[in-house]
Amino acid sequence: MFYRTRVSDAVIRRLPMYYRHLKELEKAGVEKISSKELGKKMKFTASQIRQDINCFGGFGQQGYGYHVSDLRKHIGDILGLERSYRVVIAGAGNIGGAVANYEGFIQEGFKVVAIFDKDPKVIGTQIHGLTVKNVSGLSAWLKDNTADIGVIAVPAGNAQAIADCMTKNGIKAIWNFAPVDLVLPENVFCNHVHLSDSLHILTYMMNEDQLFQRIEERNHGSDVRI
Amino acid sequence: MFYRTRVSDAVIRRLPMYYRHLKELEKAGVEKISSKELGKKMKFTASQIRQDINCFGGFGQQGYGYHVSDLRKHIGDILGLERSYRVVIAGAGNIGGAVANYEGFIQEGFKVVAIFDKDPKVIGTQIHGLTVKNVSGLSAWLKDNTADIGVIAVPAGNAQAIADCMTKNGIKAIWNFAPVDLVLPENVFCNHVHLSDSLHILTYMMNEDQLFQRIEERNHGSDVRI
Repeated sequence: MFYRTRVSDAVIRRLPMYYRHLKELEKAGVEKISSKELGKKMKFTASQIRQDINCFGGFGQQGYGYHVSDLRKHIGDILGLERSYRVVIAGAGNIGGAVANYEGFIQEGFKVVAIFDKDPKVIGTQIHGLTVKNVSGLSAWLKDNTADIGVIAVPAGNAQAIADCMTKNGIKAIWNFAPVDLVLPENVFCNHVHLSDSLHILTYMMNEDQLFQRIEERNHGSDVRI
Repeated sequence: MFYRTRVSDAVIRRLPMYYRHLKELEKAGVEKISSKELGKKMKFTASQIRQDINCFGGFGQQGYGYHVSDLRKHIGDILGLERSYRVVIAGAGNIGGAVANYEGFIQEGFKVVAIFDKDPKVIGTQIHGLTVKNVSGLSAWLKDNTADIGVIAVPAGNAQAIADCMTKNGIKAIWNFAPVDLVLPENVFCNHVHLSDSLHILTYMMNEDQLFQRIEERNHGSDVRI
């Protein structure tokens, strides 16, 4: 799903989880942790964790465990968090506002440098210390300024036009919240947040027992018929 | 990660994606699709798709392909979307507002029945036709009303208290947006949205080439030293 990556999706998906848990451990003052203990905390096996970390050339010493802050920094480097990113947001609604105001991002080197919207009632208002600009000026702004990541938080119908404008003006990475698959140039990276997927996983969990009860009843029923 | 599920995380994670793609196909008027075509669209193999669907007792006819709307309905049933859900939101900020206003949810049977906040400036305002209530009344409200899903969209420091209040008053499923791991009773399901994970996957993709260049240089360097 994460096209063109050298490492499997499953491993990539676990990296931010390691990062989060290690940050928590670091905050709690834990200095050292074994892969077994980290695995227990994260509900992974120790060998899974060692394998994942070894995808990136190995780290730590056999039988010694990991230095929490060193491993947190190592995973952060793998995730590209040792550098900073200039972020442009299109759409100053709930999602755009949530991204702009998310405090954790600032600590990690994500700097929101401009927010655009098309609603005259929203243009000119302040979000996180930035004045919301008219989206008609996005192209011109991107010609005069640099940005690393474009956040698309506009309605589905406007998302492709915003993506086109961003990528034509040098944006190489899109974080897309609009519920639509974007068509992007080959050299542009994109990660899509589907909030509904997360909600559907929750409803799956809520209903799994009844689901398998129905499946078993059906299977039993067909056995009887045979 | 999705504790206590009978089917692997990876399969569960793909179910909402199937649902989304099938909904799009249905909307586009496509009546039939082979697992090969669906696989191509979703960047999965045909056999992966057949295997995933077979986890739930099988569906469709060998060599015939799938009826798009039947399969969409089948996956929807697996995801528990054939029923409706009453949703209570704690936190009327950006995230709470985004959930309340997300139009797709309404079509799928999610009905936001109450929104709570603790900010006097926000209490009494309207979100999606609902008057934001004082969170001090959450417990009493839950005693008098039923809800299936509790959305936690409050700051990290308040999330556990809200979760406790919800679960003590009969909520069996929590959709948590607060950046904190909740301690919940065993019979409560929870799915956690970590927005930062998604952003970190994007930065990983942006930096992967340079990362492996560094790893190769390091490996080469150590060869030389040997």
